[in-house]
Formats: sequence, structure tokens, C-alpha cells
Amino acid sequence: MAHKYVYLFNEGNANMREVLGGKGANLCEMTNLGMPVPQGFIVSTEACTRYYEDGKKLSQDIIDEIDEYLGKIEEINGKKFADPEKPLLVSVRSGARASMPGMMDTILNLGINDEVAAALIKGNPDPKFERFVYDSYRRFVQMFSDVVMGISKKQFEVIIDEIKEKKGVKNDIDLDVNDMKELVVRFKAYYKEQLGTDFPTDPHDQMLESVKAVFRSWDNERAQIYRMRNDIPSSWGTAVTVMPMVFGNLNNKSGTGVAFTRNPSTGEKAIYGEYLINAQGEDVVAGVRTPSKISELEREMPEVYAQFIKTAKKLENHYKDMQDMEFTIEDGKLYMLQCRNGKRTASAALRIALDLVDERKITKEEAVCRVEPKQLDALLHPTFDAAALKKAKVVAQGLAASPGAACGRVVFTAAESEEWAARGEKVILVRLETSPDDIKGMVTAQGILTVRGGMTSHAAVVARGMGTCCVSGCGDIVMHADKKYFTIGDLRFNEGDYISLDGSTGNVYGEAIPTAPATISGDFKKFMEWADAARGDFMVRTNADNPRDTAQAVKFGAQGIGLCRTEHMFFEGDRIMAIREMIVSDTVEQRKKALAKILPLQQGDFEEMYRVLEGRPMTVRYLDPPLHEFIPKTEAEKDALAKDMGITVEKIDDICVKLEESNPMMGHRGCRLCVTFPEIAEMQTTAVINAAINVNAEHPEYNIVPEIMIPLVGSVKELKFVKDIVTATADKIIADKGVALKYKVGTMIEIPRAAITADEIAQEAEFFSFGTNDLTQMTFGFSRDDAGKFLGSYYENKIYDFDPFAKLDQEGVGKLVKMAADLGKKTRPDIHLGICGEHGGDPSSVEFCYNAGLNYVSCSPFRVPIARLAAAQAAIKAKK
Amino acid sequence: MAHKYVYLFNEGNANMREVLGGKGANLCEMTNLGMPVPQGFIVSTEACTRYYEDGKKLSQDIIDEIDEYLGKIEEINGKKFADPEKPLLVSVRSGARASMPGMMDTILNLGINDEVAAALIKGNPDPKFERFVYDSYRRFVQMFSDVVMGISKKQFEVIIDEIKEKKGVKNDIDLDVNDMKELVVRFKAYYKEQLGTDFPTDPHDQMLESVKAVFRSWDNERAQIYRMRNDIPSSWGTAVTVMPMVFGNLNNKSGTGVAFTRNPSTGEKAIYGEYLINAQGEDVVAGVRTPSKISELEREMPEVYAQFIKTAKKLENHYKDMQDMEFTIEDGKLYMLQCRNGKRTASAALRIALDLVDERKITKEEAVCRVEPKQLDALLHPTFDAAALKKAKVVAQGLAASPGAACGRVVFTAAESEEWAARGEKVILVRLETSPDDIKGMVTAQGILTVRGGMTSHAAVVARGMGTCCVSGCGDIVMHADKKYFTIGDLRFNEGDYISLDGSTGNVYGEAIPTAPATISGDFKKFMEWADAARGDFMVRTNADNPRDTAQAVKFGAQGIGLCRTEHMFFEGDRIMAIREMIVSDTVEQRKKALAKILPLQQGDFEEMYRVLEGRPMTVRYLDPPLHEFIPKTEAEKDALAKDMGITVEKIDDICVKLEESNPMMGHRGCRLCVTFPEIAEMQTTAVINAAINVNAEHPEYNIVPEIMIPLVGSVKELKFVKDIVTATADKIIADKGVALKYKVGTMIEIPRAAITADEIAQEAEFFSFGTNDLTQMTFGFSRDDAGKFLGSYYENKIYDFDPFAKLDQEGVGKLVKMAADLGKKTRPDIHLGICGEHGGDPSSVEFCYNAGLNYVSCSPFRVPIARLAAAQAAIKAKK
Repeated sequence: MAHKYVYLFNEGNANMREVLGGKGANLCEMTNLGMPVPQGFIVSTEACTRYYEDGKKLSQDIIDEIDEYLGKIEEINGKKFADPEKPLLVSVRSGARASMPGMMDTILNLGINDEVAAALIKGNPDPKFERFVYDSYRRFVQMFSDVVMGISKKQFEVIIDEIKEKKGVKNDIDLDVNDMKELVVRFKAYYKEQLGTDFPTDPHDQMLESVKAVFRSWDNERAQIYRMRNDIPSSWGTAVTVMPMVFGNLNNKSGTGVAFTRNPSTGEKAIYGEYLINAQGEDVVAGVRTPSKISELEREMPEVYAQFIKTAKKLENHYKDMQDMEFTIEDGKLYMLQCRNGKRTASAALRIALDLVDERKITKEEAVCRVEPKQLDALLHPTFDAAALKKAKVVAQGLAASPGAACGRVVFTAAESEEWAARGEKVILVRLETSPDDIKGMVTAQGILTVRGGMTSHAAVVARGMGTCCVSGCGDIVMHADKKYFTIGDLRFNEGDYISLDGSTGNVYGEAIPTAPATISGDFKKFMEWADAARGDFMVRTNADNPRDTAQAVKFGAQGIGLCRTEHMFFEGDRIMAIREMIVSDTVEQRKKALAKILPLQQGDFEEMYRVLEGRPMTVRYLDPPLHEFIPKTEAEKDALAKDMGITVEKIDDICVKLEESNPMMGHRGCRLCVTFPEIAEMQTTAVINAAINVNAEHPEYNIVPEIMIPLVGSVKELKFVKDIVTATADKIIADKGVALKYKVGTMIEIPRAAITADEIAQEAEFFSFGTNDLTQMTFGFSRDDAGKFLGSYYENKIYDFDPFAKLDQEGVGKLVKMAADLGKKTRPDIHLGICGEHGGDPSSVEFCYNAGLNYVSCSPFRVPIARLAAAQAAIKAKK
Repeated sequence: MAHKYVYLFNEGNANMREVLGGKGANLCEMTNLGMPVPQGFIVSTEACTRYYEDGKKLSQDIIDEIDEYLGKIEEINGKKFADPEKPLLVSVRSGARASMPGMMDTILNLGINDEVAAALIKGNPDPKFERFVYDSYRRFVQMFSDVVMGISKKQFEVIIDEIKEKKGVKNDIDLDVNDMKELVVRFKAYYKEQLGTDFPTDPHDQMLESVKAVFRSWDNERAQIYRMRNDIPSSWGTAVTVMPMVFGNLNNKSGTGVAFTRNPSTGEKAIYGEYLINAQGEDVVAGVRTPSKISELEREMPEVYAQFIKTAKKLENHYKDMQDMEFTIEDGKLYMLQCRNGKRTASAALRIALDLVDERKITKEEAVCRVEPKQLDALLHPTFDAAALKKAKVVAQGLAASPGAACGRVVFTAAESEEWAARGEKVILVRLETSPDDIKGMVTAQGILTVRGGMTSHAAVVARGMGTCCVSGCGDIVMHADKKYFTIGDLRFNEGDYISLDGSTGNVYGEAIPTAPATISGDFKKFMEWADAARGDFMVRTNADNPRDTAQAVKFGAQGIGLCRTEHMFFEGDRIMAIREMIVSDTVEQRKKALAKILPLQQGDFEEMYRVLEGRPMTVRYLDPPLHEFIPKTEAEKDALAKDMGITVEKIDDICVKLEESNPMMGHRGCRLCVTFPEIAEMQTTAVINAAINVNAEHPEYNIVPEIMIPLVGSVKELKFVKDIVTATADKIIADKGVALKYKVGTMIEIPRAAITADEIAQEAEFFSFGTNDLTQMTFGFSRDDAGKFLGSYYENKIYDFDPFAKLDQEGVGKLVKMAADLGKKTRPDIHLGICGEHGGDPSSVEFCYNAGLNYVSCSPFRVPIARLAAAQAAIKAKK
């Protein structure tokens, strides 16, 4: 038997969305529920995949099957294509597995031609209807030419304008039936002029071309971008739904509308929506007439309203979720055209989930699964005013480095940011890239925009820690910071000009867009408690390097620190000087002198963080920086350093040259620093162990067990070498102080070789933390800082469906993670496993970590709630 | 039962070298063969390992066992330690599994003290013997103090000099017995002064300290360096051989000597060696008296000679290999003190192997295993005069980038190299780093020395291709090329000064050392034929990028090209301009224009190479360069390029800045270039396919099937994207020309992700070639160019035993290679597998590749014979 590619609405159900698309599957479900749905058919997503496999061709078997099903719906509806008596008109819509609203164009009134138009008018002699028929006709010609055949819309608008001018009218509505007829003729003529063939009058031809157009649209640029942003694989394909037209504009007993079973903005339990009498769907969208609130339908058409409310309730109860419905009333009869789980704001999602539990419609665990983890961002960060955002224009795009919305005036230096903020201005700090010296100015800015640097650049890391909006690596910007302006293409932005940033999309807007502050309601707490209960003993920690970020993360529910990047502790204040001094040290003596300056600062930081953590664990990663991040760059910095170290600037220059590396990411960093300079590991161990002993003395109940993490390990001998330094130093301090402190030594797994030899490494490591940022770089063999030059082409050509630095590449990097987790457990069954790369805050990656048998994820403070929710959902899913 | 750590000579045999060390195992074997060996015991290598595990302590059970065995040998020899009548004296020697000649010190005459000395003299009243006894005594004190207790030798020499001065004599030999007695007293006094304790008189104490000293010596610097250079794992440990002393200096019926069963320099079949009458081994070494040829012993002691010759023959027949023997004659009685397979020169190794086959002592396959593959280097490249080399001083060390010996006068530019060479001077070209512009000067130099750059730098790659000696990355050099000198520490070398380079060790000598040219004899051809027969269908290809290197490789037996680096084809002549133009192109038009210039050049090169190959296969790798290697650097280069492209230098500068990458090794290179600029793949495909068609037309018998290799692939979709461009281009040309050309498309496996997902990649790839240079970089997460900064510390601290870029890291990188090979075969059972990294010419790596199921290795032309031999040995080993 040939493969089945086409389905009637009564041949499917809601569970078949993979094959029928979401729209098609729900139409089937409504049909099965006995709801009034115009009966059509669905060309499956498999036909779409086949279309692409066949080199963008519709194979004859699919064409034959479509024709067969056309026959079936003609029979069911008692109408026939091109029939002079009862002609059938249909709509052709796309419908993918996941909702991709507005991604693909719809074709309405397919089946119309001169004869059909005449036949329609015969059935309804109202002159308004005649105008409507020809209006529909000319719209179909226009839409088919544009959407299906790719003729630009522009000339059609020109033709309309010519006719309006000739008649001396302003609006389309003022054109009469004859004008419409003229438009049909002129549109068809233009079509022939453009394509050299007559406009197709045979509805079958119109149909096949339209199906192909929908399939093609799966791959248009809008769709590609939407898929990438929403993690939808390009392999899914779209289905095509073909449905008989019903006319909301047939007469005053007709109408069309859209409604939600609950308020999608607030979650309030009340039907919410609007409709227009004597109108088609596009009239609602066009906004020429103002629609009425759905409640008014009760007054206008009480029976229809009652039927609609009953249907809506039945749908919500059936799907156990808020529904978004489209309906049309034709001559007093209600037709349901679409239903789906309604999109909603984050706060609405929370409220609806909680209410549905109260109403005993869903369980708490089901409620936990009803909120997209990423949506929580909107609760934790400022958001743009939705209406204003719609009108705003994106002028550039960078990396979505730290979520939230920000609006403010452009400043170019950290000092200006501080000054302007001090006098009450909201500012956006725009920099080529930020450095530790910029910290104060970053704190006072609403948002940070950088030209260079990736998702782990200084700007990105610091901004995420603070929860400040940041767009990084916006290469479209050409900076003229010295002259206090920057350009994007032809646009010029001066100091003081307003811009807005969306840190969740990377969009940059060249204007002010009002923002609303973050709002966490009581719903949030209750909801997250349910999530935590479902999550079980899978933990969520945070990446934090200072007491401020730590406190924030604890407030958001972090159960400890999974990654304290010790070098970041020196981003603030004058500390950078000491770390620079250490890095440029040429002799052991110089280095020890610098380390002696660092020790009390670092120990103090650890103590403060241990206090904030109140007994929660903290994994301290030893010095890791690719050195170039800390080398003094400006003359002033070099002067200061030379003075401080009592050497010449020339000497500093010499040393900096010696420190230069061809590939710093793969250079002298991580534990390699401790192998060459063991005194660094000694100092850091002293700081951690002393801090733990001191805070334990203040608060014995904390019972701190320091977790010391050696970064960038590639072989067990390397780890053992550094670990030996750590244990010798720690054991001596512990013995000297006569305390009974326990501590653990573990490693990052971020070098492919470490993952491959994890069984050996586990002989020395008490825990693994997967550093998936570096692991992704090394596994793919490209540096995040450089990948911008070619990743665009990779997305365009569908080589990658997503950014592997944002979402874990489960087939490649994930295979290494799984391998390392398994090998590690083989050697040390109780080994503690976590992840501390950016991926720790990405929902799909959290799910992967849960399933790979890890014990925890760690992410930046503002992503902690997202990780908690994602982990809870993973746990619930795994239970099933 | 407790573990056995000590063995009598009759408790072991030659197969136990892992436990007993080479020396100990052979003493056991000689004992078993009934040869005259002084009967002692061996403390095993396992005791050494245990010593290190116990934190460099000798555990009580081992001490007890040693004491027990001391008792046993006292009984066997009828002598007792510290016995006033028949005192036992012993030697204590190290002996590892592999011979490490001269690595560790030996202690002779252990057991001596005042009473023992007196007892010895009692047994031989000859006054010369009395002097000998006290000479031995003072030597023992000196040796024990130095070797065992670590007191510097220097002061002992001072004391000797003082006594000589007092007596007015010049040589040690002129000191009489009383002087010797005084030396013993003064040496012991100095010992006490240094250590605060009396010199140990108890032979048991002397013994245990000596055993520990031998174990310690396993880890001294000399030993570490030797192990690293010879691939000996530090985990093996050394055994200790304790053997009763026999005295070659007892009287004129005594003597000592060293002999080989065949000539170790030439391989000639004749006993070869020398001896001294009335002397100890160290007298032979000291060179005070001239030893006699071994043949003269026949005249002096015919019976002993006959016994020795019989023993020597028996040993050679027993071991079926040339033996290196030490013997001593005590009062007319022959003692064998050591035997082992003798070290020999490369040409001797060949001759001996061939002769042993002629003598029907070994099979051809055994003969093939008798030559170390690395030894062949000495036949293929010039070598230093051995005597001169011994006296020469190493002034710096770099990377052993291309083997061979070179001697010449320093020049600093390629132009000078050409000029000087033209007037008959031999020159060494010394550069910060070389660039394509230097080619002509590199060809005319004897050797190349660079300050920067690793084993895959331009200098290294080009030099290996030409077989020219090269030391790269010699960071000790401070260049002042503009002033025509360089310094190494305090040493200054001016233009015209002589230096010498050893490209096999990386040593730089600050003087002229005579070299002998490469010599390939007829033996070589015969031997390699045997090797090739043993090798079977495992192939050896070469890495070659031009017709010259290809011809050389074919002469050396290469069976095709495994890697043609297309970008290297442009290192020569003016071609670099075209490739620069392509790289800095800002628009598709500019790029296509540059590519159009490159096409005929590239096609011509391919044609010429196909002709040289005469039908042998060639794998063409598409453009791969990290762009920075080709960016114009000097103003002159930029000027020329700007002029050529008709744009300003400022524009060139701008583009160069845009091309800069943070981590070029992980940047926009390899197939990423073809994804962003498909026109590159189109041009290269056109060049390859046209070339194959043209040369097939000239020589239909060649039947060329081009192998096109896409580099740096990380995912199957990426490969598919580029492959689609290749096949579209190739199929069109083939169709247009109406020929029936077949071609293959495959990929490098050099990105960890490619190895991990090799099953997917094999869906598109018809062959894999493992690019183990990059794969090693990515797997270890360090860049070869930067690793120099820390790898030294890694070797010192025994974290790495060898350079993973020279010898494949089988535990890490090798695991990925094996995984990829297995996954690839799972998808495509007939997939063709090879390796083209540097490791393709390293014997242990070749063996790994053979066992991993690869089909071939590919290496630089001058390593082809090494790879052929290594592969043959691997095949023979695998058969067993």
C-alpha cells in the first residue's frame, strides 16, 4: 500500500500533530468532539519532507492523493470545485507541529474564477454580496500572484491607487463592484505580463500550486529565523490544511472573531476576545472597523453566543488548558475554524496554571509543565511595552548576552555612565568591549551594548551576574568613541541619543521604547515550590563570583555555588592591579609578592561568600584566565603597573609581548598555570581553607566543606600534580590550626581528552563539573570569539539549527558529557556531577543533564528560576 | 606469601627483563647456559616501583629479603661480607628493562672497610696489589660519597691534587700505597665533615644505601631526558644487580675487556673489541693505557681466548643477534660480566640483519624487526661526525622539526642564503619565522633555524618536504636580524659565524661540526623489499604539495599522496600574491577574480603531480589555512597587493584588521571557508577534475580517480553542504567533457566532534583521513604554537612522558581515532581510512594505526622509508 499523505478531518486526532501539524490535529479533534468545523483535509508534514527530499517537487502519488481527497470533501460538503451551481471555495493554510504564528501566508477563496464568481452571486442577490465576491476574487488573484507565484505586491497596490485616483476616492471601501471587476481584469493582465501565462482558472491547478507554496514557505527566511529562536528543527516540515470557506461577511447574521477562554495577558478566568459582524478575518486584522468585545455577542446573537461559550468551555475542559479560538458565523450558523492552547504572558501562564489546579482540572505537576521555563525571564527582568515594541524598528542585532529590556541614552565611557546616572539619567553603556575597569559604569547603566565579544565575554558574564540587560558582539556598529558617536549603516547615534536593547533577542532599537519593571507575584513563589517538589534531589546551583551576585542567586533559590570564577573576583575595584602584577611577574619572587597582596583580598571574598551562602556548598575554581583578558592594554594601565612593581614601562611591554599567544583560548591557562607556577595553587588553597575555617568558627552550624575545582585538566597526572599541591597546603593549614575541616578536590571536564579519559581522572577527582563552554569550543574546534564570522552562513544553509553555545549540542558535545559521566561513575560510583557552562540555564540542556545522570546544574543568578523549572519539568517527564 | 622482590641469577632467565631489567635477565640467562658468571642477585624493578609508591622509602620486607639473599650469595661464593679471611666485595649496578647506557652510576668494591682491606692484602702480598686495594678503597669512599650520599666530587679531587702537589707528582698513577691510605683517611674525614656522621663501615648499610641510590637515580634529570627521547615510560623503574667483584687487576694473568660479536659500525662478521691486561674496567674507560685489540688475546692467553670466542659464538647463536659483552679475567679465569644485543649504526644494523638471514639464523621477517625504524633517518640524511659531535657543546635547543645534521655559516635573509650559496658557502638560514617568500633561500641553505613556530610551521613543513634539516621554535634565541646578529644567553653569533644543527634532536651547536652525507647502500633496497613483503596491503603514502617533493617520496617508496595541502602549493614563487588576493577579497567579485588567477596555476600543479605519480592515488585537501598565515605583513607586501588589486593600502589594512582572529587555529578556516565562500570549492574542484581528465587523456593507463578531501569538518551537514558544491561542479565538467571520470569525496577527521559523530559523517564521506595534528590540539585543548610555554614543566613533572605532537597519544587522541574508525566502518564497511598528521611517520603511531584497522599512513617524503619499516614491523607483530 502506498504511504498515506492526506487525511480527512475525521481521520485524525489531537495526538497526531507530528503528522498533521498543530492546526490540522486540532481541527480533527474538534471534528471528533462533534463541533461545527467546515470539513476539509490535511496534506501531512510527511508530504512536506518528501517534497524536499524529491528536490522540491510534488510527486505524482501525492498529487493523485490530493485530487482524491478533493473529491471526498466535495462530496461531504455537497459543493464542487468550479461548479456553476454550488461552487466550493477553500482556504489553504500552513500548520507545523509547533505553532509558528504568522510565519507562513494563507491563501483564501481558492477555487474562484469568472464562472464561480457568477455562480456565487446567483445564490445571494444582495449587491453588497456581489461586491464582496469580486473583492474576494481580486484579493485571491493578488494573493495567489504574491504568495504562490512570487510576484511583488507593489504593482497591485499601484493599480488600486490608479483606480482610486480615477474615481477620486481615498479608501478601498469606497470602490464599488465595477471597480472590483476592473481590478480582477487588470490584476490578471499584470499576472500574464509578469509570468507570460494566463492566470490559472482551474481550481485543481490553483490548489497544487498553493500546496507547493506552503511547503516552500517552510523554508523562507522568516520561518528559518523563527525556528532558530524557538528550537524548532528544520526537519519537522509543515502540514497544509485545506478547508471549505465560510463567509463571515455574507450578511448581518454573519461575523468572525477570535477569543481566548481566559485572559492571555493576566490569566483572569473569563472569556476574552473580539468579533466583527459582517466581516472576514482579515477585516479584524486590517483594523478599519473596531471590533466588539466578545461579551457583546450575547446581546447581538444570544443563541450563537451560548453555543460558542459552550464550545469554548468544552474545549478548555477537553484540553485542560486555556484555548485560543477562531470562529466564523455564516448566516447565523457558528463555525469553529481553529483552536489551540493559547499563547500567554508569563504572569498569565502562572495564574492559569495555579487556577487550573484550584479548579482540580490538572495536577500540580501538570501545572509545573504549563509554563515555558524561558518565559520566567519576563518576570525577572524589565520588559518592553508590547504596543510600543511592535512599532519600533530593529536597527542592529548582536548576541542575546543577558536578558531583559533596557532603554536609555547612549554614553561611551564608564565614567560618563556613573556621572549621567548620578544626575538621574538612564543610560546605555556602549563600548567596543568592556574591561574590569568599567565595572562601576556597568552597574549604573540600564543596559550594556558591546561591539566585540561573545556570550562569555567580560560584559556578558558581568551583566548576567547582575541581571542587567546586555547585547554583546554587535558587529554592525562602527565605533567612533573618541568623537562620541557610533554608526550603524547610515544611521548615526550621538552621545545622549536614546536607544533600546532587548537582551533576550539581541535586538537593538534606535529609539526609546518604554519598559515595565520586573514583577514577581505571590503566584511565583507558590508555583516554584511546586516545581521544586517535583524536581526532587536534582540541584540547581549558581555561577557567582562575588557576595552581591551570590545573595541575588540565593534569593532566586540557588542551592549553592557551582562555579566561583576566582579571577572574576578581581574584576572589581583596584584588585585588578594585583592580579595583573601576578600575571606579568617574571620571577617567582615577584609572583609571590603579588600573590601575597591577593591572598587577603581573596580570603576576604571567600569568607563573605560563605557567610551569604549560610552553609550552602561552593565550588571554587582556581585561576583559569586566558591571560590576554588581564594584560594591561592602555598606556595609563601600563604606567600604573610599572610604578606599582617598580619596573619600567618598557619592561612591562616586553613581558606583555612574551605573554602574547597565537591562540590564547588554547594557551597557557587553567591548571597549566598551576603546573608552571605552583605558588598560585598554594595561595588559592590558603585563601579557601582559611576562609572556611574562619567562617566555620563563627557559624559552626554551617559546617562548610570547601570544594576545590582544578580547571582545564586533560590528563589524570596533571590533576594529580595540582591536587598534590592543594592537599599538601590544605592539610598543613588544617593540622597547624588543629581543626577538623574536610574538603573536596575535583575538576572541570572541559577538554575533550578529559571526557575521553574520565575513568582515569575520576581516580583523583571527587567531583566533575562539565565546563560546556570550553568543551563546546574544543569539540567543535571553533572559538566562540571568532565563530561569528561564519556561523551566520551555517544557519542560513541549515548546517546548524541552533547556537551550540546557547543550547547544548547533544549529538556531539552531549555524547562526550554522557561518556564522561558514565566513565566517571565506573571508577567512582558516588562521584558528584554537575554542569557549570552557559548551558546550565538552558531548559533543553538542563533536561539533557538530568537524563545524563548529573546531580546538579549551575547557572547565572537570574537564570536560577528557569533552571529550577526546567529541571522540574525534566524530572516529571522522566517519571512518565 | 609475601611478594618476591629479590632473585638469584639461577632463578631468572632472559624473558624476565620486565622484572629483572635487561642486565639482570641476561646474567640469569648466561648462568643458565652454564657460562662463567660471578653469582649475585637482582633486586627487581617491582621493588623500585614499590620504593616510589612508598614515598621513596625501602620497606622492611624488601630490606629483609635483600639481607636474606646476601646470605645466599655469601654461601654460593664461599666468601662473607666483612670477613677477615675471605671477604666478599660486590658491585651494585642499575639495570632497566630497556638499555639506558651510562644513565645511572655504578658502585664498585662495595663491602670494603679497614679490616676487609687488610684481609684482602693478606691473600696477595704483591705490593702492587696492596696499592690496588687501597686505591679501590679510596675510590669506593669517593664513589659512595658522591653517588650514594650526594657529596660533590670536587673536594675529593682537590684533596688528591693537594697530595700530588705535596709529593711533586703529576698523575694519580704516581701515588703510592701510602698516599692511597692517606686518601682513604682524608676522604672519610671529609665525609664526616659534610654529613656529620662516620663513613659507614658495615657492608649491609653500604648495600641498602646503594640500592636506594640506584632507585633514586631512575629519576635523575639525565635519566628523565633519556627516557623521553627514547619513549621509555617512567613507570618501568630499574632493577639493581648485585654481583661479586672479580679483579682484572689482580696480576698479569688478569685483565678486562669489552667485545662485540660483529663490528657495530660496519656490521662486518668478525669479533670486535679490546682489552687491557692487569686492569679494571674503569682503566679502559679512563684511557690512560691503550687497550689491545681483542685478537691479540689469542697470543697472550690462548686458552682464555678460545673459551671467550666459544662463549661469544654461543651467545650470538643463542640470542640470534650481535652481542655486546663485558668480561674480566681473574688470575687466568674468564668471567662474563654482562651481555646484551649490541647497539649498532644504521648501516651495521642493515648488514647484520641481512647476514643473519644468509646464515639462516633468522627469517626475513625477523630481520625486518632488527632495525629500529627511526635509525633509517641516519641513512637518509647527513649525519655529524661522531667524534666531533661528542666534543661539541649544545648552546640552545629548539624543536626537532626536520631530521638530519647541518653545518654552515649564519645568514639572516633568504636573499643572503641564495647569494652566499651561489658563491659556494654552506649556510644556515636563521629567521624569526619563515614565510612563503623565503622559499628560494630555504632551498639553498644546509639547515634552517627559526625562533618561533612549531612542528607544523611553514619552516618545518617545507623543510621536511625537502629533507632539509630544520630546528624550529628555538625560543632561547634573541634576534637582531637588522643588525645581523643573534644572541643565546651571553653568546653572540654574527652573520658568517659557523653553527651546526641537529634536526633529529633540536640541538643547536655554536660551532662547526663536520657532517657526512646520506648514504643508501644496496643492502637498503633488499631490506626494504623484505619489509614491504611483510607489510602486506597496509599502504604508505606521503604528504606532498609539489612535484619535487612528490618525486622524492615516490623514490622512497611512497604509494601515493595522502595529503596534498593545496594552500602550500602557493608557497612558491609569485603565487602567494594570488592567494593573498583571494583571502583579502571583500566581495564575491574580487574573490572570483583572484580565484580565476589561481585556477590555471593550481590545475597545472595537479597535472604535474599526477604525471609524477604515474597512476598512484592523490588525496587533495581543499583550502585549510588559518588565514593569518597568508595575510601580508610587511609594508612592501601590502603595497604590492594593493597595487595588484587596484585598492588603497588603507583598505588592505582595514581588511587585515577584519581578518584578525582571537584564536586563528579555531577560526574561519577549513571547510568553513567553503561554506561562506562556495566559489573556492568550485574553483578547486574545477582544477582537480580538469587536471585528472587532462592527464588521463595523455596516459589512459593511469586511470586517475581524484580523491577530494574536505578539511575541518565537524558535522555531517557541513560536509554534505560542501560535498554538494563539489559534486555539482565535478559532474557538470565530466558531463560537458563527455568523459567517464570517477572521483571520491572524503573528509579529514581532525575535529573531536567529527570523531564522535563519525557514523553520521561516513554517510557522506567515502574516506576518512585522520588529521592528528589538529585532532591532538583540539583533544588536549592546547595550541601547538603556545604549548611551548608550559610543556617543559609538564615533562619535568612527569605529567607527560612524550610530546603528543610527535607521538600519538594513544590513551586520549588514539581513543578518538579508534572510535571514529569503528563508527565509520559501521556505517560504511568499505570506508578507506588513513592518517596524514605528523604521526604518520612515527613508528609507535604507525603501529597504532595498523592495529586500529586503518588502510594507510601518510608522512613527509623523508619519513616514508621509516613508515614502511614501522608498518612492516607492526604487521609482523600483529601476526604473532
